Parts: sequence; C-alpha cells; structure tokens
Amino acid sequence: MTRPSTHVDAARLWQSHLSLARHGATAAGGVNRQALSDEEIAARRELIAATRDLGLAAFTDAAGNFFLRMDGREADAPPVLTGSHIDSQPTGGRFDGAYGVLAGIEAIRALRASGITPRRPIEVVAWMNEEGSRFAPGMMGSAAFAGAAELSAFLTVTDASGVSVGDELARMQKAFRDVPLRPLGQPVAAYVEAHIEQGPLLEQEGFSVGVVTGIQGKRTFRVTVSGEEAHAGTTPLRGRRDALLAATAIIQGLSRAFTDPDDILKFTVGRIEVQPNAPSVVAARAVFSIDLRHPDSARLRSLGDDIAGLSIDYGRPCEVTVRELSCAMSLEFPQPIRDLIRGRATDIGIRTLDLPSAAGHDARFLHGVCPSGMIFVPCKGGISHNEAESATASDLADGARVLADVLLDLAGN
Amino acid sequence: MTRPSTHVDAARLWQSHLSLARHGATAAGGVNRQALSDEEIAARRELIAATRDLGLAAFTDAAGNFFLRMDGREADAPPVLTGSHIDSQPTGGRFDGAYGVLAGIEAIRALRASGITPRRPIEVVAWMNEEGSRFAPGMMGSAAFAGAAELSAFLTVTDASGVSVGDELARMQKAFRDVPLRPLGQPVAAYVEAHIEQGPLLEQEGFSVGVVTGIQGKRTFRVTVSGEEAHAGTTPLRGRRDALLAATAIIQGLSRAFTDPDDILKFTVGRIEVQPNAPSVVAARAVFSIDLRHPDSARLRSLGDDIAGLSIDYGRPCEVTVRELSCAMSLEFPQPIRDLIRGRATDIGIRTLDLPSAAGHDARFLHGVCPSGMIFVPCKGGISHNEAESATASDLADGARVLADVLLDLAGN
Repeated sequence: MTRPSTHVDAARLWQSHLSLARHGATAAGGVNRQALSDEEIAARRELIAATRDLGLAAFTDAAGNFFLRMDGREADAPPVLTGSHIDSQPTGGRFDGAYGVLAGIEAIRALRASGITPRRPIEVVAWMNEEGSRFAPGMMGSAAFAGAAELSAFLTVTDASGVSVGDELARMQKAFRDVPLRPLGQPVAAYVEAHIEQGPLLEQEGFSVGVVTGIQGKRTFRVTVSGEEAHAGTTPLRGRRDALLAATAIIQGLSRAFTDPDDILKFTVGRIEVQPNAPSVVAARAVFSIDLRHPDSARLRSLGDDIAGLSIDYGRPCEVTVRELSCAMSLEFPQPIRDLIRGRATDIGIRTLDLPSAAGHDARFLHGVCPSGMIFVPCKGGISHNEAESATASDLADGARVLADVLLDLAGN
Repeated sequence: MTRPSTHVDAARLWQSHLSLARHGATAAGGVNRQALSDEEIAARRELIAATRDLGLAAFTDAAGNFFLRMDGREADAPPVLTGSHIDSQPTGGRFDGAYGVLAGIEAIRALRASGITPRRPIEVVAWMNEEGSRFAPGMMGSAAFAGAAELSAFLTVTDASGVSVGDELARMQKAFRDVPLRPLGQPVAAYVEAHIEQGPLLEQEGFSVGVVTGIQGKRTFRVTVSGEEAHAGTTPLRGRRDALLAATAIIQGLSRAFTDPDDILKFTVGRIEVQPNAPSVVAARAVFSIDLRHPDSARLRSLGDDIAGLSIDYGRPCEVTVRELSCAMSLEFPQPIRDLIRGRATDIGIRTLDLPSAAGHDARFLHGVCPSGMIFVPCKGGISHNEAESATASDLADGARVLADVLLDLAGN
C-alpha cells in the first residue's frame, strides 16, 4: 500500500483554490462570498461538479451544512468528518475556510488514487455561516449540528438589509433540491479541520504544518445605545442625548479599561450602525459589536462580565443595553488527536509546530461531540480576513498530505 | 383693496401640509422625502396639481430647483421670490421646508383672492437638496442658483448606494419633461423665506411670528480615517491600525477640545460609515461627518481650522484626512427687510420677536444676491429633524398672513 499522502497533488490543490475563488471574486483579488449568498450557492455547485468523478454523495441538513460523503467498508459506521467553511468575510481572502474544504477533497482524491476504501465513511463538510459577518453570530451551522445551540434561535437573525437566516436557508435548499436533507446532528467518529493559521508563527518559525493545541476563548456582544434625534444646529449640547457620541465614549472607555500591558487580550469593535446617520441630525440610535478574546477563560469571563456595567456608565445620558451573542471559553484539543497529527507528519518528513488558535473555528463545536483537532498551514504575514490573504501551494499541499494520512488512520484501513 | 393677509385660510393651509406629507409618509407620522427621490418627484407633481386653479407657470433649472410663477404687471421685472424646500431628513417632519413652500402658495392664493396683480412677478421656489442628508452638503440648489458654488462640483456627489446627484437630476428632469428649464440664476428683486423656528424661543415667549435677524455660521467636514483590515482574533492590538477605534478617539477628542461652558458652540457627528463593518474584522476605513456651528464668525473660523490638526493627532496610528464640505460664516439679514416684516405683522395685530436662526437655510445664499429675510413660526418643543415635529394651524397661518402682505409690498401694488 502507498500512503494516501503520496498522491496529494500540490498543483491540483492550488488550482482548486483558484477555481473556487471565482465565486465572489473581488477586484482586489479577494473574495466576498458571504453566508447563504448567491456566491456561496454557486461555490457549492462547483464543489459537486468538481468531485463528480470521485463518486461522492452530497447531503445537506436543516442548518444548511453541506456534506460530500465517501462511503466506507462499513456503511453504518459513524463517519470521520473533515472540512471547514466556504463563506467569507465581505472583504475576505481565498484561503480562510476554503482550504479546509478543498484539502479534505484533495485527501479523498488521494485516498481514491491509493486504492484504499477505509472502514469508516469520510465526509467533507462546509459548515453554514462560520464567519458571522452577514449574520451574527458566526459558526451557526456547526453549533446547530453539535447541539451547542438551537437552530430555531438563528432562523430569525437578519442581515443589514433585513433578510433572515430562515429565508436564506429555504432559498439554499430550493437551489439544491436534488441534494438529500439529513437529520441535523449525525454521530461523528472524529473531526479534523485544516485551516490557514491567520497568525504569523508558522511563517516566522519556518514550519509548513502546525498542530493546533486549542482555541482561544471568545465572547461577542451587541451594544445598543438609544438617544434622541435632534437638530444639529438648534439643539444645545447640554440638552442632547446623542447616541453616536455616547457610542464613541463607550468604545473609547472600554478600550482604556481593557488595556493589557501583555497585549494578549483582543478587544475589537468592527461594526457600527447609526440611525438616522445623517450629518446634521443628532443620532437617535447606535448599535455596535464587541469581539472579546483571551486564551485564559477566567480572564475572559471577568472582562466580558464587566462590559454591560461599564457601557451603561460611559454611555450616559443615553440608554444602553448590552446583549451577549456568543460565549465560548478557551479549549484544548485532546492529546491523542494532536499526537496523531504530529505522528503522521513526522512519518512523511514534515516538521510540525504546536500552537494555539487565536481565531475561532467550527472545530470548537465539534470538540463537544467527538475527538477533534486542527491542522494549520502558514499564511503570508499572518494576514487573513483581508483580500490580500495569501498562502503557498507547497504549504497547502503539506497540510493536505498530513490530513490525508490522518483521515485514513481515523477511518481505519 | 383688502390686504391679502385677510384671505389667508388657516384650515386650507393646514390641509395642504397634510396632503404634501403623504409623499414619503413614515409610520411614526413623519416624512422621509429625501432630495431627488421618487417621493420628492411625487410631491412636486402634487404642488403643480394643487395650484392649477391659480394660473401659475412651473419652471425648473439645471440645479433641479422648482419654481411656480405668478406673473406681475411688468413681465420683465425681476421677481420677488419666496419658498424653501420640500426635501426632508430620512426621519424628518411635516413642516421643515414644506411650510415655506406651502405658505408661499397660500400667500399667492390670498393675493388672487384679493384681486391684486402686483407690479413684479412673485415666484414660489422649492430649492434642491436643502437637507444634505442624502447628498452632502445641503443647500445645493440655492448655492448653485446664487452662484455661491458651481453646480458641476455637486454632480458627482453620490448617496450611500452610489447614485449621483447628476443622475438623479437627469431623472427629475425626465419626470417633468413638460416643465420648461430656465437658465440657472435669474435676477431676483427680493427673497423672503418662511420656516418653522426649529428652536424653542417663540413657543416659550408666546409669539406666533419671529423676525429672523440672521443665520448662525456653519462649517461641515468629512473626516476619512484609513487603517488596515485585520483579523479580530489573531492580530495583536499593538500591531493594529483600527480605523473605527481611531475614529471614536477623534470624535471623543474633538468633543472634549470643543467643550463650551456657555453651551453656544454646536459640534455634531451625525453620520459614520465603516468598512468592511464586520464584527470580527478590524476596520480598514471609517468616514464620518462633522457639523460645526457658532454665531460668532471668528470663533467658528478658528475652531473649524483646528479640526484637521486635532483629528490627525487623535487618529494615530491611522492616516486621517479632513475635507471641508461647506463653510458659511454667520450673517445678518438687512434691516429694511426685517423692518418690513415686523411692520406688516404689526399692521395686522401680530406681535413679533426678533431672533437669530440657529439652523442654516437657503436664505443664506439668496442673501448674497438680493435683499433677503426670514419669517419664523413656532414648532412644538423646538423639535425638528424628527418625525415628532409639530406646529399649530393658527401659528402657520399667522406666518402666511405676514408673508402675504410682505410679498405684496416687495412686489409693488
């Protein structure tokens, strides 16, 4: 037997990234392929067409997750899952998410080429709405699949133009009438997700593959500031309840309160919406997001718990309400999966670096239902969530090689 | 001869406000009738239809201003102009702007009823884009008419969805193919604009009519903050150039720097747009408006001149550019026009209060080309630029009575 890793083709894998990146391609060379959009529908069609020769069965579920299944020798055995997501940020790159799905397909292609049918089925999954930029929070599909959240709670979430997740899921199902709908939350034997690092470590240290030790915790919030609309020329400042001014006071206040000399805490306000958002009208309402991350769960908990009280203080005289959208404490992947990834890499001469994930991933939720792990590959300058996101064909292939051999090990030869 | 003021009909004038307010009516009882919108087109149609019995001629010009002309005995004499605007803020009221146009029409109706044809023509004008909320800056139509700005400079201004003033002007012209286009900037004998006060003084002091002494100065700016897009989970805070965080630092910094113990200075940031505006992406770009007003021109000049330097300082490490969109120093209307308004009011038993205008008006630009003045009527609680904006039929009628007699005086009996 030849290891499946010997059949991974770097040029073919690279080409599959370029092909997928046509769906939602931006002028600056990035991708705008937001969750449940026309672009994502087209990208899923491409995945089906591009794998037709592999004899995979496509499935979907009520949460809009998308699976490509390679049958195993034991039809009823819970599958080994691999994959990530193909939705992107509004100005995203070609590799974030897409790599995990395309590396999974390349691994199956390599398995086929090696002539092996493993004991368990292997499924490549594209989870619904990992990014959370069109519909907040992110990772809806994997959360619903793993039972970490109720799908029903996501259905009424709307995007900036008022379109709901529920409506878009129905549209996605209609677009794939021929793809069978499976019950949400199948048993899974194991989950391994390949992803670009989205940080600088692998590149700086000269490794092509990283073994992810765990995922940094993250809490997200929506802060709503309610003031009173007024005329900018006639209303004395003392009589105003200016929602935009109050929102900026809250953001600056929290930013100062959360100053971390060690620069480990991540505090980000990436989104703000103001009403009526007119130059000569004192704003009646401002709504902004908070993304708070810290690898230490206790710190993350206490800092996040301070947000509501501080926001109310800094936001006076406006009314402030703070709603927590998601709360995920830091986690460690099980040692056996990390050892397996490191071991299969070593077997084929690839050196690995152990490192934590600063970004959140769908593997967070799968971790709750099956042994899970992640494989990182470097990305240029650690840059992601950016049209300039970049990776090398050689690094991508190294990650896919390790993944192919790991999947075989987990699925059983 | 009976004075035209005796023919002003409070109920009819009130009804004309309700009719016009149907165009762009909001659920909360306000108006969303932004410049050059479908709603404004429909409202202009209504003005033509509602005045058909008065034998007025409609005209427009390249700047999209809209005129209804009552001929005088001397066809070639420069007309007396009255009016205001019928565009509104996105969540505006039923009286701001509309009152000046409808009071002008009511005055002409009263003149017709009194059987008088004055020596000069009288024209009621609805200026294009006074509000400046869809397209910044405001008062485009009157500025272009008065030669205070080049129309060509406005044509490329776009709204939030990328539609330009030039395109919308062409659409407006097409919608009124039957309305003759006059050269921009006709000679004008005098201009009187009626408007709600947008402040609390008349109501507090118990006057139904105010003689406006002048207009508070106003400068508007657009501040562009350029940072770098980055992943909210992986990018250390020290390495970030967060455009949204920098924008909030600038807004808070300016707000502190501009603290005025006398509460006369008005500093407003009413609008902000962030890119990509996604919760887990460090913002690459933030653009916000500044509206700065002060009745003392020297103070206004020096404060406004500080904005660029302060913004660059507060906005580090992002790049900040500040562009001034409009600069209008404080002005005083000529004493003879103010005396005329006060005199005609006194003649018919209406007491007046002299007061400055804190808000900007199209009369600012007409002041540069002809003797100009303004008549204020109270609005409830001084509230405007708000769906709750309100005025009484009786106060509106008092203003129209004074306007009718003033117009006759200016046009010559």
